[in-house]
Amino acid sequence: MNAEIITIGNELLNGTTINTNASWISDKLWRMGIVTKRVLTISDEALSIKKALADSLSRVDIILITGGLGPTNDDVTKKSIADYFNVPLEENKTLRERIEFLFANRGVPMPKINLEQALIPQTSKIIPNEIGTAAGFYFEQNNKICLIMPGVPAEMKKMVQEFILPLLLKKYSDQLGHVMYRMLRTTGIYESKLHEVLSPVIKDLHDVSIASLPHRYGVDLRLGIYKKTKQDAELHIQKAQDLILLKISSFVYEVGDRDLAQVAAELLLKNKLSVAVAESCTGGLIQNFFTNIPGSSNFLLGGVVAYENALKKNILGVKKETIEMFGAVSAETAQEMVKGVQQLTNSDCAISTTGIAGPTGGTVEKPVGLVFIGCLVKNEIEVQKFIFHKERMINKYRFAYAALNMLRQKLISLL
Amino acid sequence: MNAEIITIGNELLNGTTINTNASWISDKLWRMGIVTKRVLTISDEALSIKKALADSLSRVDIILITGGLGPTNDDVTKKSIADYFNVPLEENKTLRERIEFLFANRGVPMPKINLEQALIPQTSKIIPNEIGTAAGFYFEQNNKICLIMPGVPAEMKKMVQEFILPLLLKKYSDQLGHVMYRMLRTTGIYESKLHEVLSPVIKDLHDVSIASLPHRYGVDLRLGIYKKTKQDAELHIQKAQDLILLKISSFVYEVGDRDLAQVAAELLLKNKLSVAVAESCTGGLIQNFFTNIPGSSNFLLGGVVAYENALKKNILGVKKETIEMFGAVSAETAQEMVKGVQQLTNSDCAISTTGIAGPTGGTVEKPVGLVFIGCLVKNEIEVQKFIFHKERMINKYRFAYAALNMLRQKLISLL
Repeated sequence: MNAEIITIGNELLNGTTINTNASWISDKLWRMGIVTKRVLTISDEALSIKKALADSLSRVDIILITGGLGPTNDDVTKKSIADYFNVPLEENKTLRERIEFLFANRGVPMPKINLEQALIPQTSKIIPNEIGTAAGFYFEQNNKICLIMPGVPAEMKKMVQEFILPLLLKKYSDQLGHVMYRMLRTTGIYESKLHEVLSPVIKDLHDVSIASLPHRYGVDLRLGIYKKTKQDAELHIQKAQDLILLKISSFVYEVGDRDLAQVAAELLLKNKLSVAVAESCTGGLIQNFFTNIPGSSNFLLGGVVAYENALKKNILGVKKETIEMFGAVSAETAQEMVKGVQQLTNSDCAISTTGIAGPTGGTVEKPVGLVFIGCLVKNEIEVQKFIFHKERMINKYRFAYAALNMLRQKLISLL
Repeated sequence: MNAEIITIGNELLNGTTINTNASWISDKLWRMGIVTKRVLTISDEALSIKKALADSLSRVDIILITGGLGPTNDDVTKKSIADYFNVPLEENKTLRERIEFLFANRGVPMPKINLEQALIPQTSKIIPNEIGTAAGFYFEQNNKICLIMPGVPAEMKKMVQEFILPLLLKKYSDQLGHVMYRMLRTTGIYESKLHEVLSPVIKDLHDVSIASLPHRYGVDLRLGIYKKTKQDAELHIQKAQDLILLKISSFVYEVGDRDLAQVAAELLLKNKLSVAVAESCTGGLIQNFFTNIPGSSNFLLGGVVAYENALKKNILGVKKETIEMFGAVSAETAQEMVKGVQQLTNSDCAISTTGIAGPTGGTVEKPVGLVFIGCLVKNEIEVQKFIFHKERMINKYRFAYAALNMLRQKLISLL
């Protein structure tokens, strides 16, 4: 089953509003086995709307339209669609009573303009709006369906979940199968390398769609499969996951939706271990990741952002000679930082970062992107060196993820 | 001048990725007086791509295409567009050398697949990619231009800002009017209250569009105006800004694009003052904001994330009796934390946060959302109490912004 989405509104075309409706709807459809073939965004112009609708109806059976149902002058969707189907607008008694009731309830007099919201195209059916005053409506012709909703996300979402998805499921029950997803989250490997490693495997996975989603901190692979039955989908996606993990398991920190800080946090909790952090170049980002997790006080003691060298010495106990001899960005400093924060907080584990995030501060020997990361788990310290990127914000994320990943790997080896 | 945007990628059609590129680009075009008439999202299919391009070229002069330039199998944009313009792909020597250089620099062998990225359609011209390996390219025919970029937001944005906008400005200089924007960034006032306060003013500003952009940390107001001449646009937007500031100046921390950390940082630099931070409930977020700024080592010494109470005592010198008598979340603790981190780092200024971010940990007397913030500037300490939200992530942002705003206000009073 294929669908198209048409989103209407000048605010979507001048950068004021990001089109989150389209991706939200297509996600919900996809999970039912309905593939969105295209998303079109157009302005509030009758001609464009009618043309777009005609085009879509020539290609697919399911069309979802959002936006332009408000009470203001620039909202022309309803009239345009009525024109397209060659029917007039007529007042719907239930809608009128509901709108009058809503305004009475708010204790404000109803602006006349809102009465227009009681009109819907003849021969269309209502999609109830439980939150706002703009009702949705839909047309059915042969096996095709065209559903029109307001653009306000909360109103649209309620309509889709409570009315439209059940309606589509009923209408097309014999044609819909089961879609299943699996997210494999990787860090420490470039997207192109990932695909090189996986290409022999991917060739054999004809029935699995593999989306590669690069982020600042790593690449997520989203496996998707569509099968007639749930059991079949489960079986095939598990097989694909197993084949892929054989090739890249060392880079996969999560099969699911957790981020790396959450994965590390759960390993700490499972091992009943606390952690402390000494950050230089990551500047608080690692502790920020940890404290985004509800209940982080159960494993995070806290730590130090030792941005200035004096703080590395005075608070973390890094030796003056170490910095003089090896520099603040060095394996030796990373090692003393991680030891220092562990002693300061009496934690079970600790991580430290010292590097050059950029854009300035790099030299030939120590370029922008260089970082030394210390990781201490149960008195064993390891220091690793990485060279990442030229861009400050990307580096902060890569540095932080490399540090969290070292911690994760050490904790796994304890299990 | 009209444009159309075509965004290509299956991930945009199955709900995996929200299409932020399209709204970002249309915003940039709008600011130049170029109106985006439609945005079309299609999958990585050669036929759809060629059809979409043909349709757009029949309607408008400027077409921007993003996505599908990666090295993987599902990226077919380049080949499809070359086919449409009836030219072969050919290797570009400069591109090849750059890709080889990038991989050599990273110290990793180049996967063969990346060599394909040195190919571009014959007769097209390169749009340089300073960040990644996928170059952009463009075709010019008569007065029309068709620009193709990768979908990775950071790469696309750099191309648009540094290459495409100047190119369009030069090519269409005689046809473009002047669009002017002004961003007023507020914190500490709710969106609905803001609009109530402003409604008498807004009524009289017919030629100014006012977009209200709520964020976790405050509400941005974006004033926009389109006039034939630059002088006229400037005059009218300045008038609107003055009228609005008369009503809400105490909530506006920035007229422009800087975030609150940048505003505070520039005040610190201007006064030649250093800062240190003691964070409990914000968990590193304030220091993370500061260290996102290039050159932050010129004003930020660093600080402590004192998540556990023992760290508040041992590192920051908060008295045992203070925590016992008033609690860790109290004005007294916030005061000793800010004093403690100042003494520890010998900074000129300091801020501290202690509160309850949630979702748990609240009581009737000290609910989720409660925070005490200490601010020290030149030995004067002030502590303020706020109650914000129920949601952890929103609270972290509100807490951090309230702290940065206190610092900003104190620094301004020095001027």
